[in-house]
Amino acid sequence: MEEKKKVSGNIRLRLQYDGSRYDGWQKQKNTDKTIQGKLEQILERLYGEPVEVHGSGRTDAGVHAFGQMANFHLPEHASVSNPEEIKAYLNHYLPEDIAVSEAEAVPARFHSRLNAEAKTYCYRIETAEKKDVFSRKYVYGLGKPLDLDAMRKAAEYLVGTHDFRGFCSLKKFKKSTVRTIFSIDIKEKGTLVEISYTGDGFLYNMVRILTGTLLEIGRKERSAESVQAVLESGNRELAGFTAPPEGLFLQEVFYQKVQ
Amino acid sequence: MEEKKKVSGNIRLRLQYDGSRYDGWQKQKNTDKTIQGKLEQILERLYGEPVEVHGSGRTDAGVHAFGQMANFHLPEHASVSNPEEIKAYLNHYLPEDIAVSEAEAVPARFHSRLNAEAKTYCYRIETAEKKDVFSRKYVYGLGKPLDLDAMRKAAEYLVGTHDFRGFCSLKKFKKSTVRTIFSIDIKEKGTLVEISYTGDGFLYNMVRILTGTLLEIGRKERSAESVQAVLESGNRELAGFTAPPEGLFLQEVFYQKVQ
Repeated sequence: MEEKKKVSGNIRLRLQYDGSRYDGWQKQKNTDKTIQGKLEQILERLYGEPVEVHGSGRTDAGVHAFGQMANFHLPEHASVSNPEEIKAYLNHYLPEDIAVSEAEAVPARFHSRLNAEAKTYCYRIETAEKKDVFSRKYVYGLGKPLDLDAMRKAAEYLVGTHDFRGFCSLKKFKKSTVRTIFSIDIKEKGTLVEISYTGDGFLYNMVRILTGTLLEIGRKERSAESVQAVLESGNRELAGFTAPPEGLFLQEVFYQKVQ
Repeated sequence: MEEKKKVSGNIRLRLQYDGSRYDGWQKQKNTDKTIQGKLEQILERLYGEPVEVHGSGRTDAGVHAFGQMANFHLPEHASVSNPEEIKAYLNHYLPEDIAVSEAEAVPARFHSRLNAEAKTYCYRIETAEKKDVFSRKYVYGLGKPLDLDAMRKAAEYLVGTHDFRGFCSLKKFKKSTVRTIFSIDIKEKGTLVEISYTGDGFLYNMVRILTGTLLEIGRKERSAESVQAVLESGNRELAGFTAPPEGLFLQEVFYQKVQ
């Protein structure tokens, strides 16, 4: 029974990180400032051989995560295989802006990206003239009021299964750009506005372009209905600006219950 | 009627700041990295002449404030006297780690320090192996469990009117070291422990030494009763260590309702 928890050798991690000083999740040749790179570097030190860490998806440079999920397979004859010990080791050697909040053994076939059923991203906007001092690095400082009703109206057009090509920064597409957004929830907490997007997947920069478009609608620079033309045309030029990364969090990744 | 709100020329500010990169509240000759110094510098730019800002009290280097209070008197023929305009000007020129959350005109006789009736300081401790990534600069990372019952028992000895000389870093005292602590409230929020101290005043480093002592009690390195000997002897050597500044917040300053 290879899938039995204790012998699967497949470890799933739940991670939080402050993306401010990183070049995003995915490891790159020309920088060691990536989250995946940091994790793999420490696991290589622990096991004495390279270990590949699979994330649920990439996050851009400067984007944060509250609940990024990742998994890796233990090398044969791994010196440390207990999830709690792995978590403690990683937390000890990771910098203070990356933390493992959970570690558990999962079935051998589990893959963080391929098995992800849905994700929630959260974008936070300060409408007051100045950001709260203590969360200033995790909020976009708009500094102007927003018409939330107009934004909610636009959100209704966006929810559902659509071709979101017009809300993506890429110019060439090899794969389908059809995605389903299950919900867009816009909440006011004092002068802070939080937009939560839950969907089965998101294209490159999609959440930031959706947010930029909603912000232009909230500022009455465009109509709620204008998002329909972006969906229909697939034309990036018709959508709004790409909201900056500092307000964005990968909040949660959803999986079917692990057996 | 000089005390009438609109003509008093006395402006009270409520401030929040991240103390991490500052040498404390009070302006000093050899550094421009103080909160008071930053405020006075911007007000001098606004009014074209020096303006003295009175804080409710000093905070040490690295200590934060959620609700520090300060006041200053407008120069004669001040170009800007509307509190909201002053707030907007200050927030525009202050760095992102200092913010004015309120500004209001108060009676001419009001003084932030002399009229303060009570203050609440809050000290936050992470007992888990790693701090939460997003509040890591505002929490002391103990990384070990605490016996809160023992700490609460010690707190009972500390509450009340006592000579707190043994909980102060100064070696010479010109003024009374008797203070009244109204309450010490110890709360658990997940793996975070928050200790809130409310009292009529606090001596130099007193909250940090009280916290260090309570932490030693919570770690069972000393008994709850041991605080009695510190109070009775006034001997700093008998108290615990000075807890580091990053966990400490000046939370609230209380005044009689301004007439």
